[in-house]
Amino acid sequence: MNKINEVEARRDEFRAFTREFVSPYATQHDNEERIADHIVPDLAKRGYLAPFISQKWGGEGMDMITLGMLHEEIGCGCSSVRSLLTVHGMSAFALNRWGSDALKEKWLSALVRGEKIGGFALSEPNAGSDVSGIEMTATVHEDGFLLNGTKKWITFGQIGDVFILMAKAEQGFTAFVVEKDMPGLTIEPILGMTGTRGSMLAQLNFKDYFVHQDNVLASPAFGNVVMLSTLVFGRFSVASGSVGIIQASMDAVIEYSVRVQRFGKPLYKHQLVAQMITKMLSDLTASRLLCRNAGELLDKADPSDIQAVFLAKYLASTSAVRAAADAVQIHGANGCTDKYPVERLLRDAKVMEIIEGSTQILEEKIADIELQSYEQRDGK
Amino acid sequence: MNKINEVEARRDEFRAFTREFVSPYATQHDNEERIADHIVPDLAKRGYLAPFISQKWGGEGMDMITLGMLHEEIGCGCSSVRSLLTVHGMSAFALNRWGSDALKEKWLSALVRGEKIGGFALSEPNAGSDVSGIEMTATVHEDGFLLNGTKKWITFGQIGDVFILMAKAEQGFTAFVVEKDMPGLTIEPILGMTGTRGSMLAQLNFKDYFVHQDNVLASPAFGNVVMLSTLVFGRFSVASGSVGIIQASMDAVIEYSVRVQRFGKPLYKHQLVAQMITKMLSDLTASRLLCRNAGELLDKADPSDIQAVFLAKYLASTSAVRAAADAVQIHGANGCTDKYPVERLLRDAKVMEIIEGSTQILEEKIADIELQSYEQRDGK
Amino acid sequence: MNKINEVEARRDEFRAFTREFVSPYATQHDNEERIADHIVPDLAKRGYLAPFISQKWGGEGMDMITLGMLHEEIGCGCSSVRSLLTVHGMSAFALNRWGSDALKEKWLSALVRGEKIGGFALSEPNAGSDVSGIEMTATVHEDGFLLNGTKKWITFGQIGDVFILMAKAEQGFTAFVVEKDMPGLTIEPILGMTGTRGSMLAQLNFKDYFVHQDNVLASPAFGNVVMLSTLVFGRFSVASGSVGIIQASMDAVIEYSVRVQRFGKPLYKHQLVAQMITKMLSDLTASRLLCRNAGELLDKADPSDIQAVFLAKYLASTSAVRAAADAVQIHGANGCTDKYPVERLLRDAKVMEIIEGSTQILEEKIADIELQSYEQRDGK
Amino acid sequence: MNKINEVEARRDEFRAFTREFVSPYATQHDNEERIADHIVPDLAKRGYLAPFISQKWGGEGMDMITLGMLHEEIGCGCSSVRSLLTVHGMSAFALNRWGSDALKEKWLSALVRGEKIGGFALSEPNAGSDVSGIEMTATVHEDGFLLNGTKKWITFGQIGDVFILMAKAEQGFTAFVVEKDMPGLTIEPILGMTGTRGSMLAQLNFKDYFVHQDNVLASPAFGNVVMLSTLVFGRFSVASGSVGIIQASMDAVIEYSVRVQRFGKPLYKHQLVAQMITKMLSDLTASRLLCRNAGELLDKADPSDIQAVFLAKYLASTSAVRAAADAVQIHGANGCTDKYPVERLLRDAKVMEIIEGSTQILEEKIADIELQSYEQRDGK
Repeated sequence: MNKINEVEARRDEFRAFTREFVSPYATQHDNEERIADHIVPDLAKRGYLAPFISQKWGGEGMDMITLGMLHEEIGCGCSSVRSLLTVHGMSAFALNRWGSDALKEKWLSALVRGEKIGGFALSEPNAGSDVSGIEMTATVHEDGFLLNGTKKWITFGQIGDVFILMAKAEQGFTAFVVEKDMPGLTIEPILGMTGTRGSMLAQLNFKDYFVHQDNVLASPAFGNVVMLSTLVFGRFSVASGSVGIIQASMDAVIEYSVRVQRFGKPLYKHQLVAQMITKMLSDLTASRLLCRNAGELLDKADPSDIQAVFLAKYLASTSAVRAAADAVQIHGANGCTDKYPVERLLRDAKVMEIIEGSTQILEEKIADIELQSYEQRDGK
Repeated sequence: MNKINEVEARRDEFRAFTREFVSPYATQHDNEERIADHIVPDLAKRGYLAPFISQKWGGEGMDMITLGMLHEEIGCGCSSVRSLLTVHGMSAFALNRWGSDALKEKWLSALVRGEKIGGFALSEPNAGSDVSGIEMTATVHEDGFLLNGTKKWITFGQIGDVFILMAKAEQGFTAFVVEKDMPGLTIEPILGMTGTRGSMLAQLNFKDYFVHQDNVLASPAFGNVVMLSTLVFGRFSVASGSVGIIQASMDAVIEYSVRVQRFGKPLYKHQLVAQMITKMLSDLTASRLLCRNAGELLDKADPSDIQAVFLAKYLASTSAVRAAADAVQIHGANGCTDKYPVERLLRDAKVMEIIEGSTQILEEKIADIELQSYEQRDGK
Repeated sequence: MNKINEVEARRDEFRAFTREFVSPYATQHDNEERIADHIVPDLAKRGYLAPFISQKWGGEGMDMITLGMLHEEIGCGCSSVRSLLTVHGMSAFALNRWGSDALKEKWLSALVRGEKIGGFALSEPNAGSDVSGIEMTATVHEDGFLLNGTKKWITFGQIGDVFILMAKAEQGFTAFVVEKDMPGLTIEPILGMTGTRGSMLAQLNFKDYFVHQDNVLASPAFGNVVMLSTLVFGRFSVASGSVGIIQASMDAVIEYSVRVQRFGKPLYKHQLVAQMITKMLSDLTASRLLCRNAGELLDKADPSDIQAVFLAKYLASTSAVRAAADAVQIHGANGCTDKYPVERLLRDAKVMEIIEGSTQILEEKIADIELQSYEQRDGK
Repeated sequence: MNKINEVEARRDEFRAFTREFVSPYATQHDNEERIADHIVPDLAKRGYLAPFISQKWGGEGMDMITLGMLHEEIGCGCSSVRSLLTVHGMSAFALNRWGSDALKEKWLSALVRGEKIGGFALSEPNAGSDVSGIEMTATVHEDGFLLNGTKKWITFGQIGDVFILMAKAEQGFTAFVVEKDMPGLTIEPILGMTGTRGSMLAQLNFKDYFVHQDNVLASPAFGNVVMLSTLVFGRFSVASGSVGIIQASMDAVIEYSVRVQRFGKPLYKHQLVAQMITKMLSDLTASRLLCRNAGELLDKADPSDIQAVFLAKYLASTSAVRAAADAVQIHGANGCTDKYPVERLLRDAKVMEIIEGSTQILEEKIADIELQSYEQRDGK
């Protein structure tokens, strides 16, 4: 079990960072619908932006268990900052795994050092959980492709420099590396979200945007593979961040329910409050163990890692909603104000249930994976 | 059953009013943290501000079943406007039931006509659900009392002209009629709430505020009775308004899930969406029936009306949270934006679970009432 | 509201009967997997077997609201006896509504007087909720049909004299009136059920069973209409019976939690017990109101009656499971024994969630009805 | 992570044993309300009765992670057999940890070899979860004590040879080692339980039963410590056994929902079935990880092991009820028969929610432990 102990040892480091550089700005991020300017440099300085990248490109080759814990702790402080780690990480992950040497050379160090911000452009107005609805086209044009269509709900799309973008080419579903400052791309901020309000969503409108064939990840028609493995990374990050939300709810509740007295005793001494706390702790512990389990399998490249990540995301995101809602409830009227973090946690948590595979998609998918594997195993 | 049919006939009237004068402003109320200026005059013109008051004072002597439906329909349009009906109604209710002729003369017509806004000042920083925590004092002074203390979370406290206020006097718990523009009262707006954001909460700070003894409702030490019966009125209104939130969630979901296609068919054809819709409809129907049942008992002054109102509030408010959360879920990313009403409905609903008897208070109280009545019935 | 009061007046009568003639035998029915011999005569004497049948045939033309209450009260005493009322009633209902004069003459009085027991034979080994799976065939033969196939899970199939049976004929889905003592029908008891163990299930094996064309209900190919309307009757009965289970759970819990002390006070004074009681009372009240609402619509032959019955069955059956499970929980180890009724109530309740439209079927169906009616209304 | 892999390697061994020697008899145990005669010898032969005992006494010094897995696998086959391992193990555990050399000499090998059956006698008619209600007295008499009182719900009390028994002595709460065949003890079987029906419960009536002072575990007044640590062992076993119930539910559901078609496709392809399967798998995975985590902490004698066991028991037992209930639901009418294991699993699971700390006790206790530790940590 030494591995786990080693990993846990870094939790203090991540937590100390979060308490100093992230948590104090969470309300501001929520109010201003953007992250503070110092966040990217602060993360970059510690190497937290894409630490799983190898030392060759400036990373530390961090394993996934530790990475999950980092995203959990950051997510405990501010979901918007965690969402930066998610999509920035997804772009670095995809480039690292599928990119040519030239693409790696061009982007990886810059992403690790925070000189460039990366994102993942998959969703469209008519294609969220249902990827088959994607309408974005890539038409062959000279030594590359012309992109046409609209990407929506792109996290940090307002400030992203480079996006891994999925489009339908003649050869098949293809992943492109797309840069911001090029003709044919206009970016519209999406404001007024209910949660993770600092994640600077944007709509990306592509009109005859030219992308050179060297910017194809892997090869044309290989997009599905790139997309799926990158989504696993993203989903693991969101699962971990959801654990962070549960922890943040728990922290708030503990502090409040010990301090505040009602009917002559601390709140937590009332059974109905205790029940919510127990449920929260059970969910927290279980979700954290599921994430750790997923991280371990990812590190081993175990074939069951995809299912383990699905399960972690499923439990952690649904638990986060319940935990934050109960935290608001325990805080009473105080919980409905922005003087306490809990109502923000509830809004942030609700978003977790929708992104990177909604609860409903997972409810169908997880069973399907499990039973198809059973059918295959038994040769039925 | 003719009575019910008569009542239902007015639903169209209330709904038409809401669609024209309330719903279109709900987002504005949410954003600006105040209701639009025309709301009070619009409500007053139809006599909706306190229609249960008798014709003598300008009301129509509306029965409680019909009143519940009015609050439901308004609450379907905007919880902040409904919360105005709740607290304004509570003040008119208390004055009508317990006030002297002079107090009625002074206030009732003005409240019915919307010339004055009324409120109910019970909660304090350390006394929400736990009324025993009330610290506000009323000390005998000349021919009246001096009030000292702080009232918090007072709905429409920012614009209220007159408040029914509960304080501890030497004689016992007492209800006072308190006016705004008098020395010793300062009013601080409370902003940044998560839901029913247009309800213009305030903190009322009383420092040696003089209230004449003629402004005591009923008599000193009779405060508990005034408070309890007024809370029943308020709770019935909140229950009805919660039904309105469920209906609003349902309306949004029906429209969306018929129109939007995923995986080749309308959303509602997917079992997991259908399940949420079915649950929502079951909750809606049951909550509405519980409210109607409570209204009927209130109109008969049946002794079981208190418990019926508790049950209606319990089911309707918890169902409203579930309905709105599911409505967000069905809308996916769209549901997390202010382009659709559902994320506001979720924030509004969460508040319903806390005010006028939190879910936890009700979970304890309802069982207690039921079993104590059993013990008495059986002479145990 | 006078109607409701009138109806409620009969509750005492039903309850008194149940306490004397039904409840005392519930455990015996459960243990012996059959109802006691005196049950049918006792029910017949009061006219409870099919009281909705008109006086012409010996009934009292009871309205559906009152009938629902009868089934609720009997179901509170013993689900197996209630299941007799359900299927016996379904056969009488179908014969009354769709039968020729000759069929009515032959059967209705005998069913009302309990001289004959009726049942409804729809389910098959491969066709429960999915009626499309029905394999039973009716082939034209001389002046009638030959039936071949197997009906399974037929309530009171062990003692039924006459069954309304659904089969696929060349002309279409057809409803037949089928008698027991005829060649070609063998009956196998089904034992070892978990709940409503006294309902004497059987499997009916038909091999070249001849049924005369006069025994076709309505006309060939009209089976779907017969089946659907008869199922509405049955579903309403099951919904009402489920309310009875909730009431029985509540009765047990009230008695126990007032009497038994833990940690120095009666059980019900513990918040977590109170919470379960409150939930139970809320479910009970709401389910009962939904049933009454459905009964009222059935009496008016309102087009929305089908949906109202679906909703009543959905809420009442799922609530019954929750109520009985919580009742067991409150009773602790005692609740796991047959010295208290609650563990039987849990087993009986679980069956309610499966029969006459499982929870899952309803979750899909109710939403579908609602949204299709919306689509039609709006001409979309 | 090698430790885990080593442990998992033994799962196959335990599973093979269970499939051959346990599962085939589960229905028989349920029907006959006793375990088959060969069970004890079969368990003894493999050393499964108390494998955590050191080699000195014939055990293998098995660690708790592995023991938990053994109890899980046996519990997957039959809860009654698992309950034997629980209480037999508790007696061996207590004797091993707190017994004098003479007591160990006398009992440990015999328990390991299955020559004697051990049990734990704590509960009484008025003392289940509330230990303060214990009325059993131990009065000093000559060189020992006279025991008077009644122990109830004693698992395998019908065949147990030796019991660890808790009683109130003058010196304080005391743990005794009590033998069956002695004057003053009469044993009444308790039959008619709803679940784990083969666990051969008994009521033990003590009237002036003499127990020698050498049979005091640890020392008088040390009973609380003995009881608490023995209960941790028992609770860990019940948690593990509950995981087994979830796994058994899952196994049944997978087999059934792949094989059975409804509406033209396998059951598991229907979203509402998939949802239940996904929830079940999530609960299974999380509960198993919580048990493993608890086992690991127990092996390290980590101070947080008590809380970890509480959490494992809380999640696993409540999940087992949900899993088994859903398994019945997926099986439809078939699930309500004893031809499939699922209705038995539901009855067995419900018992898990009550024994060794009911869900409600845990909901209060877990929060209490957590927040008291917070208060101490922060010196508040």
